[in-house]
Amino acid sequence: MRIEQGSTHEAVRRHNLSVVLRQLHLAGPLSRSELAMRTDLNRSTIKALVAQLGSLGLVRESDADHRGTRGRPSPMVAVRSGRLVVLAVEIAVDFVTVATVGLGGRIHAEQRIDLAHGAAVRPAVLVRQVRDVAAELVRPSQVIMGVGVAIVGLVRGEDGFVHIAPNLGWADVPLGQLVADELRVPTAVAGGSRAVIGPDVPVLVANEADLGVLAEHARGAAQGFDNVLYLSGEVGIGGGVVVGGRRLTGANGYAGELGHLPVNPDGRACGCGGRGCWETEAGKRTFLRLAGHEQSERPEQPTDPVAHVVAAAKAGDPQAVRAAEEVGRWLGIGLAGLVNVFDPDRVVLGGMYGRAFDVFEAAVVEVLKTRALTPPTVELVPAALGPESSLIGAAELAFEPLLADPDGVLTASLSARDGAASARVESSPAPRTKGKRDG
Amino acid sequence: MRIEQGSTHEAVRRHNLSVVLRQLHLAGPLSRSELAMRTDLNRSTIKALVAQLGSLGLVRESDADHRGTRGRPSPMVAVRSGRLVVLAVEIAVDFVTVATVGLGGRIHAEQRIDLAHGAAVRPAVLVRQVRDVAAELVRPSQVIMGVGVAIVGLVRGEDGFVHIAPNLGWADVPLGQLVADELRVPTAVAGGSRAVIGPDVPVLVANEADLGVLAEHARGAAQGFDNVLYLSGEVGIGGGVVVGGRRLTGANGYAGELGHLPVNPDGRACGCGGRGCWETEAGKRTFLRLAGHEQSERPEQPTDPVAHVVAAAKAGDPQAVRAAEEVGRWLGIGLAGLVNVFDPDRVVLGGMYGRAFDVFEAAVVEVLKTRALTPPTVELVPAALGPESSLIGAAELAFEPLLADPDGVLTASLSARDGAASARVESSPAPRTKGKRDG
Repeated sequence: MRIEQGSTHEAVRRHNLSVVLRQLHLAGPLSRSELAMRTDLNRSTIKALVAQLGSLGLVRESDADHRGTRGRPSPMVAVRSGRLVVLAVEIAVDFVTVATVGLGGRIHAEQRIDLAHGAAVRPAVLVRQVRDVAAELVRPSQVIMGVGVAIVGLVRGEDGFVHIAPNLGWADVPLGQLVADELRVPTAVAGGSRAVIGPDVPVLVANEADLGVLAEHARGAAQGFDNVLYLSGEVGIGGGVVVGGRRLTGANGYAGELGHLPVNPDGRACGCGGRGCWETEAGKRTFLRLAGHEQSERPEQPTDPVAHVVAAAKAGDPQAVRAAEEVGRWLGIGLAGLVNVFDPDRVVLGGMYGRAFDVFEAAVVEVLKTRALTPPTVELVPAALGPESSLIGAAELAFEPLLADPDGVLTASLSARDGAASARVESSPAPRTKGKRDG
Repeated sequence: MRIEQGSTHEAVRRHNLSVVLRQLHLAGPLSRSELAMRTDLNRSTIKALVAQLGSLGLVRESDADHRGTRGRPSPMVAVRSGRLVVLAVEIAVDFVTVATVGLGGRIHAEQRIDLAHGAAVRPAVLVRQVRDVAAELVRPSQVIMGVGVAIVGLVRGEDGFVHIAPNLGWADVPLGQLVADELRVPTAVAGGSRAVIGPDVPVLVANEADLGVLAEHARGAAQGFDNVLYLSGEVGIGGGVVVGGRRLTGANGYAGELGHLPVNPDGRACGCGGRGCWETEAGKRTFLRLAGHEQSERPEQPTDPVAHVVAAAKAGDPQAVRAAEEVGRWLGIGLAGLVNVFDPDRVVLGGMYGRAFDVFEAAVVEVLKTRALTPPTVELVPAALGPESSLIGAAELAFEPLLADPDGVLTASLSARDGAASARVESSPAPRTKGKRDG
């Protein structure tokens, strides 16, 4: 971080506001003295910062914490989760999920749109559906501070342009722009018209696995670790990396496509145009084929075929055991390469690899022993957040600008709304929607 | 960066000192107004910071710059390169180089120690040789602010512990500690006794390719790029990565072992214990073997065998051309995987790949076209710094603490020397050594 000219005191104050808000957002309620310890700021500075965050509507103080403290009890501080929220959107192959999420990662309301299996959906149509659901979910008392979108595709970070999303049949879709345009248009709601977001609210789009690692890092199995590899095994291998505490994005936001490491140049053809990419050797399709479930991916299949093979492997079925060993071996081969490249302190396995962690673990560890150069300090753990990790990561992405500069963002947002107020009629309270998780 | 408690103004001042000194160190002399532009600090702040850096002995001001400026001419500021220096050490397979380097990257004196080819040298013996050479190189007027050591091996960043350096026959060598202990012992010099470094001078050790990328990023082909892959092709593939402007170190400093990506699981046995690692498929030995120069690595071979094959390929010799194509193809395969993982904006090719860039380039680009997922924004360029890049990187590593906090480091160093002065007799001027590049 560089302290900018002319406003050095101001920059320090804004930076410290960010540090304190981020602590409360990630760690949950803390006493003022815990905040002082965690941030290395003194108690009087903390008191002033908490008061400022309070007047911005971001935190509230409550009764003092008496748990085993000596001396003066220290007031508890917590984020206010209800009013300033973000919109988190996950665009998966078969469904889209939209949620409103408050500070602290609290999901206020969530709704799922099922997509017809295998049918390509047009981006504009999908984005309109997202808008309609979002308009229902957001309460009039809530202000959307940001929009985060997770998508199975290769995304340019700068503007959310989706270079390619093969499983959706999308190429060169300006998704960030489409979402922003759609959500900014005022539409009819009960008692008036209303846009879902204001004109300056950022819309950020990223790859779903990149957001999976963000979520696991913020609230899951990688909390407190600064160098993390995250692999999510499905048909493809989704990957995300945290380097020195930050999400690896690369020059354009395309980084983290771990599934396309070339591990076997004479291997199977991959959807990317290459051959023997990691995901063709260690992905779900190969696992099922090796286990004799070649046809198991048809949607009419009643049970989860992966769960079926995993259960068979656990029961000692020889073909299922061999399939798990072979996929585990390929998983280990690619992972050894990445351990050599990144020297992570933790590897988080999600998707199929997380759900059936104990079935794959031995084979992976065996390969790591011979192929990883570094001393065996790296820890393999299953993902903690399950299938919602990308949605949670999308919310974290959307909160990022607010967390980085609470004062700057709220001041800008207030003046933007003042300017836009005359052009809109504010709605009366919207009806409550189904799918809400929390009132 | 987190601004620490209690001393916020002080933290900002120290941070800004760092920003200004780093600019001058990397960009060379700048006028005060250029400094203001580059740092976003205003002219009066720059004036005060330059005065402070001047009083610390780090920079000097000279005549105003009249080049096409309007209004008041702006004084030129430059680093003082002569007095505060670092010791840069490169431990390669056949030789060790020791140099004194000033701010701005100026090499003041340099000396090379040849090692017997193929003979394992004991760490303690080698470190004593380094000490003797260093004692000769450092002038009594110079103060060593840091020591940076580049080594062909897997190094723990924290304390410079060399986990393994196969080409030196070393394993589990506490190199950082050995160097620090040896350089801190006062030894006889003309007119008295003197230690090469003071008791608190940091000794930092890193892998030579990691320092190669640091050097190319600071002063070479990757200057100004924040996401860089560096590959140096020799017998192995040395690798280094810059992510978001910072060197990728990983959890322990072992990151960047790009040569051991598994690209061909049925390929040749690799020195690491694996099989078909990238460097076994795209390294120097394979290149020479494919070109029919299996025996060319004997030391008595008069000419550089790689140069010989490269010249043959350029002259159209079919076997040499095929060898270059095959190695280029494997280089491209691994590189495509890494481009998918890192999304770099620049790939810098050093060693054999840099020297014979035009012989390999076409094959590499061809593979990248089919295997890299991202749009073709990545640029391949040959390294700019040549064989001295690791030494230059070692100097940058050694300067890092001073550049990060000039005031803090110099204050600590002065008080340490005041404390130690009574225990030492300062030497009279040492005789000038051979090998000096600059007086």
